[in-house]
Amino acid sequence: MTTLQAQTVPAHIHALDAHDPLRHKREEFVLPEGAIYLDGNSLGAMPRRVPARLSHVASQEWGQQLIRSWTAQTRDDPAEAAQDWMALPDRVAAKVARLIGAGPHEVAVGDSTSVNTFKALAAALSLAGERRVILTDADNFPTDLYMAQGLGTLTGDLELRRVPAADVAANLTSDVGVLLLTEVDYRTGRRLDMAALSEQARAQGILTVWDLAHSAGAFAVDLNGCRADFAVGCGYKFLNGGPGAPAFLFVAERHHAAAPVVLSGWMGHADPFEMARDYAPAPGARRFVVGTPQVLSLSALDTALDVFADVDLRDVREKSLSLGRTFMALMEPLLSRFPLTLVTPTAEVERGSQVSYRHPQAREVMAHLIAAGIIGDFRTPDILRFGLTPLYHSHADVWHAVQGIGAVLEARA
Amino acid sequence: MTTLQAQTVPAHIHALDAHDPLRHKREEFVLPEGAIYLDGNSLGAMPRRVPARLSHVASQEWGQQLIRSWTAQTRDDPAEAAQDWMALPDRVAAKVARLIGAGPHEVAVGDSTSVNTFKALAAALSLAGERRVILTDADNFPTDLYMAQGLGTLTGDLELRRVPAADVAANLTSDVGVLLLTEVDYRTGRRLDMAALSEQARAQGILTVWDLAHSAGAFAVDLNGCRADFAVGCGYKFLNGGPGAPAFLFVAERHHAAAPVVLSGWMGHADPFEMARDYAPAPGARRFVVGTPQVLSLSALDTALDVFADVDLRDVREKSLSLGRTFMALMEPLLSRFPLTLVTPTAEVERGSQVSYRHPQAREVMAHLIAAGIIGDFRTPDILRFGLTPLYHSHADVWHAVQGIGAVLEARA
Repeated sequence: MTTLQAQTVPAHIHALDAHDPLRHKREEFVLPEGAIYLDGNSLGAMPRRVPARLSHVASQEWGQQLIRSWTAQTRDDPAEAAQDWMALPDRVAAKVARLIGAGPHEVAVGDSTSVNTFKALAAALSLAGERRVILTDADNFPTDLYMAQGLGTLTGDLELRRVPAADVAANLTSDVGVLLLTEVDYRTGRRLDMAALSEQARAQGILTVWDLAHSAGAFAVDLNGCRADFAVGCGYKFLNGGPGAPAFLFVAERHHAAAPVVLSGWMGHADPFEMARDYAPAPGARRFVVGTPQVLSLSALDTALDVFADVDLRDVREKSLSLGRTFMALMEPLLSRFPLTLVTPTAEVERGSQVSYRHPQAREVMAHLIAAGIIGDFRTPDILRFGLTPLYHSHADVWHAVQGIGAVLEARA
Repeated sequence: MTTLQAQTVPAHIHALDAHDPLRHKREEFVLPEGAIYLDGNSLGAMPRRVPARLSHVASQEWGQQLIRSWTAQTRDDPAEAAQDWMALPDRVAAKVARLIGAGPHEVAVGDSTSVNTFKALAAALSLAGERRVILTDADNFPTDLYMAQGLGTLTGDLELRRVPAADVAANLTSDVGVLLLTEVDYRTGRRLDMAALSEQARAQGILTVWDLAHSAGAFAVDLNGCRADFAVGCGYKFLNGGPGAPAFLFVAERHHAAAPVVLSGWMGHADPFEMARDYAPAPGARRFVVGTPQVLSLSALDTALDVFADVDLRDVREKSLSLGRTFMALMEPLLSRFPLTLVTPTAEVERGSQVSYRHPQAREVMAHLIAAGIIGDFRTPDILRFGLTPLYHSHADVWHAVQGIGAVLEARA
């Protein structure tokens, strides 16, 4: 990479970066040495402020304050008192809510995306009554499918109906109870029209569960604007919350009263320390917080989200599209020389924040790319995936990456 | 506390500490300044080695290695290669297994105790067939009851039968499918006879789910010796894994083939990166790992468990009983002067690693004790609870604590 990075970046690429309103954000992240990291849609880079927060949580909140950190009442310092762990999931939920077009009381943070998918599906199916069909994209991220299968194992009466994404709208029939979709396909980067599909589903009396794994933090999501019913998402991709960061669950306010809490744990109880013998849900989405939160991981996510505090998500989207356009244009000459096929839609409205290509030896090619310091990822069966993260990528990064991709493909030829 | 700690500890207390084979372990923990911490059964004290591990995971594994940390194949250094995140849950499971009398392949680490209770109950009830009654202690820890209630909400056909702990054996009837018990009561510290109850349940064709929240790390648990079917437990009490540390689930090997995985996530799949469309369980208990693990919290637990590497749990139990005996004997004179009632059994076989008293103003008394630097906890309705942690408590701590308790009660009188 050293050699590649020494090459001169063309002036028109530099010009794009010079006009980037987000260019100052890059300094807020640690980026890996000797590499161009194009996998923020698998694991976001670390915000610089995280290690200090982790150190404080470990040494002070855990090491010295211990159980006193759960509640604020024993803290003298008001700033410290506001940091009690009991309310930490709610504080993080409020930060996520702003990014996904939800009210803070509509978001619960904790557990994994998989577990939150289970909660959402169980609740949505209960509201769906006799309709026991979950309609989904056959190419949906596997864990979404698996969690639906597991729920079916438990209840014994579900049908998971899998159709190609393009056929979803035509399959919104009156026997379908729940539509389970991931907005941005993890392989192709194709973005669905959430507003239209939510509207079409609603017209058929079908509840929606949206997986925002590749959406949240990549562009502005407007769940309430789309009248989505449920959503789940991931804290460790574009939210940069750290490996396996706690996930989130959105439950539209109109469902709070009727949606059952099937993973009803003590942290979602109306009064956890009352230790009542029967479950009574906390107000709002807090009821979907289940057990004791993993405070170290949750604190890292909390701090990571502060990177977004001064960010306008419209800028993020605009830059994401620009990075994608630049990447595809620079890759274009390689498509005639190597067996590469673009699988990401070129239409901006259909794009997330990644660009993917098919290549018959994709697994081996990606291994070579990673060895050369261009970190994307391989996805079965033949996808080379490159994530674009507007908060820390420059157009120059994209240019360097494409030079490197060309060199690696050339060396194999 | 400064004044209290300046008092001279009696020689017979010092003698107990002088002969303590675990006394060197105390140095491996950070203990809060100006306080005696008797709440390790709520949140264990921080092992000194944890912050360095967290710092390494954040700055190197996340910050620099990023997605390369998930798999080992791209690491040059064999020591680093052995630390891949994909296998981290299994490495931690093996450390937990040693403490609870299980095989490493019988333990899954991740999620919360609550979520693991759901997994265990769902699997056990499936094995129980037509028997749809969960029998439990009416005073069981609330989240165990709540999770059973939530499962019942979902399946619609469960009965949660709650009886006093003393009546459990008499209620092991042929309609009961699953016996859900916590070995050590979180309020009184009363320890049940796991071996006998498991045997009696098995004789009636009833499957057992044991909650080891107040057992694991406090004394040797022998799940396979007891022929327990399922167990769950907590990483943040006597295992010292940090606030909300990942929990564990035990599934006896004989059930692996037949026990359904209802929270079937991609991390429990036989080949996660194959991204297959259908769920296929990983070998052994790994199938019960659901979503992406919260790596920061899981790494802290991993390192915290190393404190046990050179510890014989028989020494831990012996010291725990000695600390308890000492505490109760020193408290004895206070029982006639103040409205305190011992609720922890005096018989050693019936004790966990805490001592509890009833007091009509327990909530206020505990607030005063905490303000005075004696950190135990209050549990509704009237319990003062004091946890004894053999790895970092001395008999001198116990003596100082009782002096302080006496002084606080005296000041209120």
